[in-house]
Amino acid sequence: METFTKEELTLPPCKYEYLDHTADVQLHAWGDSLKEAYEQCGLAMFGYMTEINTVEIKQCSEIEATGDDLDGLLFHFLDELLFLFSCEPFLICSKLVITEFRTEGDELKIKCKCYGEEFTLGKHPQGTEVKAITYSAMQIINDPENKKFEVFVIIDI
Amino acid sequence: METFTKEELTLPPCKYEYLDHTADVQLHAWGDSLKEAYEQCGLAMFGYMTEINTVEIKQCSEIEATGDDLDGLLFHFLDELLFLFSCEPFLICSKLVITEFRTEGDELKIKCKCYGEEFTLGKHPQGTEVKAITYSAMQIINDPENKKFEVFVIIDI
Repeated sequence: METFTKEELTLPPCKYEYLDHTADVQLHAWGDSLKEAYEQCGLAMFGYMTEINTVEIKQCSEIEATGDDLDGLLFHFLDELLFLFSCEPFLICSKLVITEFRTEGDELKIKCKCYGEEFTLGKHPQGTEVKAITYSAMQIINDPENKKFEVFVIIDI
Repeated sequence: METFTKEELTLPPCKYEYLDHTADVQLHAWGDSLKEAYEQCGLAMFGYMTEINTVEIKQCSEIEATGDDLDGLLFHFLDELLFLFSCEPFLICSKLVITEFRTEGDELKIKCKCYGEEFTLGKHPQGTEVKAITYSAMQIINDPENKKFEVFVIIDI
């Protein structure tokens, strides 16, 4: 070990701070149908907010989302799910069942049953706060011929 | 509590994954001189990697950095500091003393004494890995008249 003078060992005052922490994560979900891929994408989002296997099914809420195209439909679907969590009773879901999935026509539409329970600290590990859904690099693979149904969404955290 | 059928209580399989987690944080540092602001900015970076008050002064390494302008000088200075940590003996610093600070002329230059010790898990809490320094939105306020010396740097984490 080197030897240092007292002055060398004196630490400077702190004149700094940390600003604007921004981050995002990309969700990738798939299924045997586009409907299932959307459901799974919603679960992926909840899975980022807590450990989804700690969430019991105690409540069910129904949401509706519309969109001009598949991108818009996915965006608004996820946004509605996020809204479930952002106001009382702060629902966190472990199961999503889309009961209406209109992907053709002028206005696309989803109705979905959202099963879960109120988020409770202590019971549910606190994951990362999801701040917003984004359209950034959104990708929807809807390929019935090759049975490929996948979605990619970036969310701000 | 609502009642649910057995089918409703059955959870879906997991068909999703998380990709590409990216994040950044902005460092803001200041001082009674631009030199001190640079030193503080380096400390801010180390402070993001661990709790700096757990770092004892046991070693000293000297680094040099050059740049074409103040931005480049700051970038390369931080990059050199990051390099200290990225190879053996993985030096983490709690004190930086810039001994040469040439901010005029063709080639700007910094020499800096970096005091600290080897990063040791258990002793030093693991903060966040700093992946890279960036030029993004970099800002250097060098205003001797108003005694304002500040720097803003975004680092990828």
